[in-house]
Amino acid sequence: MTDTDARSAGRGFDSAEHQARLAELYRDFEAAGMTPLWLTREGLMPAHPEPRAVPHVWSWADLLPLAARSADLVPVGRGGERRAISLGNPGLTGDPYTTPTLWAAIQYLAPREDAPEHRHSQSAFRFVLEGEGVWTVVDGDPVAMRRGDLLLTPGWAFHGHQNVSDAPMAWLDGLDIPLVAQTDQGFFEFGPDQVRTRATPERSNSERLWGGPGLTPVALAGPRPASPLMAYRWAHTDAALAAQLDLEDEGAAGVMEPGHAAVRYTNPTSGGDALTTMRTEFHRLRAGAGTRPARTSASSVWQVFDGRGSVTLNSLQRDLERGDVIAVPAWTECAFQTGSGLDLFTFSDAPVFEKLHLLRTEVTG
Amino acid sequence: MTDTDARSAGRGFDSAEHQARLAELYRDFEAAGMTPLWLTREGLMPAHPEPRAVPHVWSWADLLPLAARSADLVPVGRGGERRAISLGNPGLTGDPYTTPTLWAAIQYLAPREDAPEHRHSQSAFRFVLEGEGVWTVVDGDPVAMRRGDLLLTPGWAFHGHQNVSDAPMAWLDGLDIPLVAQTDQGFFEFGPDQVRTRATPERSNSERLWGGPGLTPVALAGPRPASPLMAYRWAHTDAALAAQLDLEDEGAAGVMEPGHAAVRYTNPTSGGDALTTMRTEFHRLRAGAGTRPARTSASSVWQVFDGRGSVTLNSLQRDLERGDVIAVPAWTECAFQTGSGLDLFTFSDAPVFEKLHLLRTEVTG
Amino acid sequence: MTDTDARSAGRGFDSAEHQARLAELYRDFEAAGMTPLWLTREGLMPAHPEPRAVPHVWSWADLLPLAARSADLVPVGRGGERRAISLGNPGLTGDPYTTPTLWAAIQYLAPREDAPEHRHSQSAFRFVLEGEGVWTVVDGDPVAMRRGDLLLTPGWAFHGHQNVSDAPMAWLDGLDIPLVAQTDQGFFEFGPDQVRTRATPERSNSERLWGGPGLTPVALAGPRPASPLMAYRWAHTDAALAAQLDLEDEGAAGVMEPGHAAVRYTNPTSGGDALTTMRTEFHRLRAGAGTRPARTSASSVWQVFDGRGSVTLNSLQRDLERGDVIAVPAWTECAFQTGSGLDLFTFSDAPVFEKLHLLRTEVTG
Amino acid sequence: MTDTDARSAGRGFDSAEHQARLAELYRDFEAAGMTPLWLTREGLMPAHPEPRAVPHVWSWADLLPLAARSADLVPVGRGGERRAISLGNPGLTGDPYTTPTLWAAIQYLAPREDAPEHRHSQSAFRFVLEGEGVWTVVDGDPVAMRRGDLLLTPGWAFHGHQNVSDAPMAWLDGLDIPLVAQTDQGFFEFGPDQVRTRATPERSNSERLWGGPGLTPVALAGPRPASPLMAYRWAHTDAALAAQLDLEDEGAAGVMEPGHAAVRYTNPTSGGDALTTMRTEFHRLRAGAGTRPARTSASSVWQVFDGRGSVTLNSLQRDLERGDVIAVPAWTECAFQTGSGLDLFTFSDAPVFEKLHLLRTEVTG
Repeated sequence: MTDTDARSAGRGFDSAEHQARLAELYRDFEAAGMTPLWLTREGLMPAHPEPRAVPHVWSWADLLPLAARSADLVPVGRGGERRAISLGNPGLTGDPYTTPTLWAAIQYLAPREDAPEHRHSQSAFRFVLEGEGVWTVVDGDPVAMRRGDLLLTPGWAFHGHQNVSDAPMAWLDGLDIPLVAQTDQGFFEFGPDQVRTRATPERSNSERLWGGPGLTPVALAGPRPASPLMAYRWAHTDAALAAQLDLEDEGAAGVMEPGHAAVRYTNPTSGGDALTTMRTEFHRLRAGAGTRPARTSASSVWQVFDGRGSVTLNSLQRDLERGDVIAVPAWTECAFQTGSGLDLFTFSDAPVFEKLHLLRTEVTG
Repeated sequence: MTDTDARSAGRGFDSAEHQARLAELYRDFEAAGMTPLWLTREGLMPAHPEPRAVPHVWSWADLLPLAARSADLVPVGRGGERRAISLGNPGLTGDPYTTPTLWAAIQYLAPREDAPEHRHSQSAFRFVLEGEGVWTVVDGDPVAMRRGDLLLTPGWAFHGHQNVSDAPMAWLDGLDIPLVAQTDQGFFEFGPDQVRTRATPERSNSERLWGGPGLTPVALAGPRPASPLMAYRWAHTDAALAAQLDLEDEGAAGVMEPGHAAVRYTNPTSGGDALTTMRTEFHRLRAGAGTRPARTSASSVWQVFDGRGSVTLNSLQRDLERGDVIAVPAWTECAFQTGSGLDLFTFSDAPVFEKLHLLRTEVTG
Repeated sequence: MTDTDARSAGRGFDSAEHQARLAELYRDFEAAGMTPLWLTREGLMPAHPEPRAVPHVWSWADLLPLAARSADLVPVGRGGERRAISLGNPGLTGDPYTTPTLWAAIQYLAPREDAPEHRHSQSAFRFVLEGEGVWTVVDGDPVAMRRGDLLLTPGWAFHGHQNVSDAPMAWLDGLDIPLVAQTDQGFFEFGPDQVRTRATPERSNSERLWGGPGLTPVALAGPRPASPLMAYRWAHTDAALAAQLDLEDEGAAGVMEPGHAAVRYTNPTSGGDALTTMRTEFHRLRAGAGTRPARTSASSVWQVFDGRGSVTLNSLQRDLERGDVIAVPAWTECAFQTGSGLDLFTFSDAPVFEKLHLLRTEVTG
Repeated sequence: MTDTDARSAGRGFDSAEHQARLAELYRDFEAAGMTPLWLTREGLMPAHPEPRAVPHVWSWADLLPLAARSADLVPVGRGGERRAISLGNPGLTGDPYTTPTLWAAIQYLAPREDAPEHRHSQSAFRFVLEGEGVWTVVDGDPVAMRRGDLLLTPGWAFHGHQNVSDAPMAWLDGLDIPLVAQTDQGFFEFGPDQVRTRATPERSNSERLWGGPGLTPVALAGPRPASPLMAYRWAHTDAALAAQLDLEDEGAAGVMEPGHAAVRYTNPTSGGDALTTMRTEFHRLRAGAGTRPARTSASSVWQVFDGRGSVTLNSLQRDLERGDVIAVPAWTECAFQTGSGLDLFTFSDAPVFEKLHLLRTEVTG
């Protein structure tokens, strides 16, 4: 019996007459579209986040063949726009969302296939687990996609993809579709049916302009919401992670915790996250290392880029193989372990809640 | 027939065999928790926001008696916490949300009644249509509530309410409950069962410290996420609106458009919105004036504080009386008109989308 | 003998031949306009600031008669522009500067006299020790000047003054003239010979628009470099200081240290300093109170608004009377004491060095 | 005759008696340390900046031999600290300043010579015209110095230099010594007599951590006043400039104006200038190109890194050779021309005046 119940009893609130009047009141509330907080408070305002989304791991070995089968059966084209298949969180029944704010999908282009140009207010990126041969054309700038690269499509930038090779290519797409959909912020526009350039340069214009460390073109200086650098190349990411671990060996600062290196992809015009609504990072665990259990009110998605290990998500423990995709809902205790070393790409909605002063994080282990 | 269909046909994608294989693929997707974007893109990524929430007007004449009836039948106390009844948008079936991000409710305290202290990550405010006699105690600081006042409860501030008068009092509560609930950012903590002070000062400490225009206590200087000023008094709001209309008569700047004055409640430590996730404003239309039809990707709630008029929300037109509450979903064309003058309080989720660089607004009329 | 000398000796650097060659080198440096750091380092880069400016106190009893005499002898008009007489720091010989960055002056308008309009990149304010009857017209907005008020003239705003009364009026002018002069940032433009309006309203338009605590006109929202509020009235300042001391008696936060209340004049659009280059504050010491000795790399000017007390500036101790003006160079230990209570207005260059990450402050007593 | 004079005449201000009284007043002002604005306004507050500093060009062919001679005659060591010889602007007589805010010097280390460690609130950088073999140790991190590199020493970072080679090395030092000296913001502290590490790595730790384009170590994330990247290598600068000109040929954005490429050295944690008080940039003019004449209220120093050309500074025109150093005072019309191509390093005080909202720039040609 809650205090409310107790006081009710004291005031004769448990009489049959009272119950009848109360039932009538609740019917009238319902008719008026009104809902009493005292019946919903616990669900609406829990002591800590109690996500409907659940921790989940998808196996790349399952995802890739399904995506490949769809290439035989479903063309890419105007209307459908993309051969992308989202990973729906089992807890979020009815919605194709990986977490309440994030949408992760496997996208697949058959040899010589194109995806037409469009743009949308949703922010997007591609992370490449394997393969090459596709160029994504972002606002007219062709950007090569290769293993280990992160490629950005900031909100409202036109973009299409083309596979110029004779092999299919698949990658991980990340977008803020659920956040934008649930808050009604989505705008979408079709572009040309064909990508506007067939050029396949090694380096995009954005890399030529913004790819020098700490160098800003004077003509383009000034803060921008999202990064003007469209590609973060694996060679740089790999070198930065290796350097952090080397520095740890040399006794210098750099790693997040023992054996755990990490880089964040950032917007060189502001130093903040590369995209406005999503944080993107790459983490490397040295052989034998693990992360200290922690939880955050951000939700995240992880993909195993290389190595093997395991993840513990609250009470769920799962072994991890290359390509596996992991959904980590808000306030889920999360820890990674590895015997032989583990490379992980991840994205989260942390920037949203940092900007709103809602983000909380705590180390639990 | 979309382009995709057309190309499918060209590649023999309309054969019975193909259909069978496709059906099998879709079953396998479903089993794997995967959803093809090409079947959901239009709903997930519309050309412009297509809210499930609908424009709606609640009559104060309906709300108040229902709230009063609940005072006879339901006590306020630990567990239930508040006698607040939310206005659920008819389009958002199943959820007690006024818009996808905002929660508006009528809260009612019987004579001499208390609401116990608690705190939560949700931001909250009270706007007082009528009455007085309640003090809300925010982090130990008792804040009087009177007609026309806006009272803040920034996220994670302890707060309880007490009615020290012999009359009931009702007011409008605004919170970001839906946003916080759907994104799993909610934390909640119980405080003392009784408000921690029975003092009923005319001015809260926050007003004594922060209520001088442009004056900052040196000892407390520095930016804060939310306003340290807990009360915005009607006398100041009224004077500021009157001044804007007077200045318009004098040919000086100040009004938003002819006959339309408006003030925003702001955080004196940053100049930004008073709360981190909600914009709060008061608008006044001169007799005979109207607002130019416009739409924004923010959603909002309005309450008629005084006067009469009408509102046009897309194709819905409704007359407005004192106390009426209006839900305006994202991208709804909205315009107010009045013959005799109209005073409107409003709150919206605009700061969220401004910070995420998603907000769009356009004048349509 | 420094290390440098010692090593020189070890390398035979003390021979006559060496001395001759060195003398020749120094002559050649001089001819080339070159200066060796090793001869100037100690002066250019001291261990801590060693200002040429000295602590100094000017007596209002001396200043006012001199200003009054000039009214008989020197008109105000185009070219001279202002009857303002600056207080030159005795240490800064040759320059009429109160500190290396600040210019304080007494300005005097005879009855019915005008000062013509002009504008400049220098920021300016007026602080009124006594009197009334003058309106300063800032970008066309007439702003009354009365005892205890702070009136702003942000950089590049046109402004003129008019005395509409039959009594003379004098006040303290503060500008960043030395900073702007020494760094070559000054622009200046003449405006109308006569102030553009003879209106003498109680409240300026800027106060009508921006004078509500925490209220921002929606039509004018957005950050500005300097405050849009041109007048900070004594009644508000006095009330805010009294409230801080009352709150101290009640055991609540607010004062800077025991018995020491202080408010900063701030820009409501940003929460920062009211002017871009100068911090303006008002301090009140309760009877029997004192400030803890402290020093800061900012330089400042203080004026006794009311009460009596004393100031200690390094080894200088001086009694203070109403109107006295005090120059506090950088890194000067400063403390105030009072038996009967002391009210002090002050301005400093702190915002400049805060923005450049150069400001240092330490409590020394 | 100014208006003031005219009105004086009208009021009999030209009588002998008046002149006598005025002279007496001015004596009394002087005794009181007071200066009338009407006698100084024109000098203190000119219509536009009228710098005492003058446009000037120093020839590297003159500077280097003088610096080399000093190596024979003056050791580097404690007290003298550095063998750096500043370029004093001929207009700023008495002060060894290149502009009123900037200090440029040639620094020279003999073979196997050291400069001891110290730190200061002044920001500093080194730009290398030619040579190699010196490592500057910044807060314990050894940073190689080679032709074309920019090396930072943010304010209050310990730093010393060591020449590990058998050749002397000279470079350009840039500091904000005049700004800090004139505003009394200088703090200075001696460090170890010997640099704290003799390591001579190819890449500094700062480059290993921060040298990946757009990559931030997660453990070190967050804004910093100055760049954590201590070295900007020539290979990157050169490539970025070449890319801008290539993009111009391809019809894409990037250059500042036809044939004029430029990069700014920036702080990756904020996107702003690499140092808090100085802007550092590298400009490249294509053969046959010139810059459009322009002036700015910032003052700057330029060094010819490569190529030949000429500069026009108001009415001064000078041919330019490799190594030449140019002082450009505020509001000096400046334009560069080249027949065969010109590479220029430059630094200025622009960030100071941007932050203070004082900076003005205009194209004049």
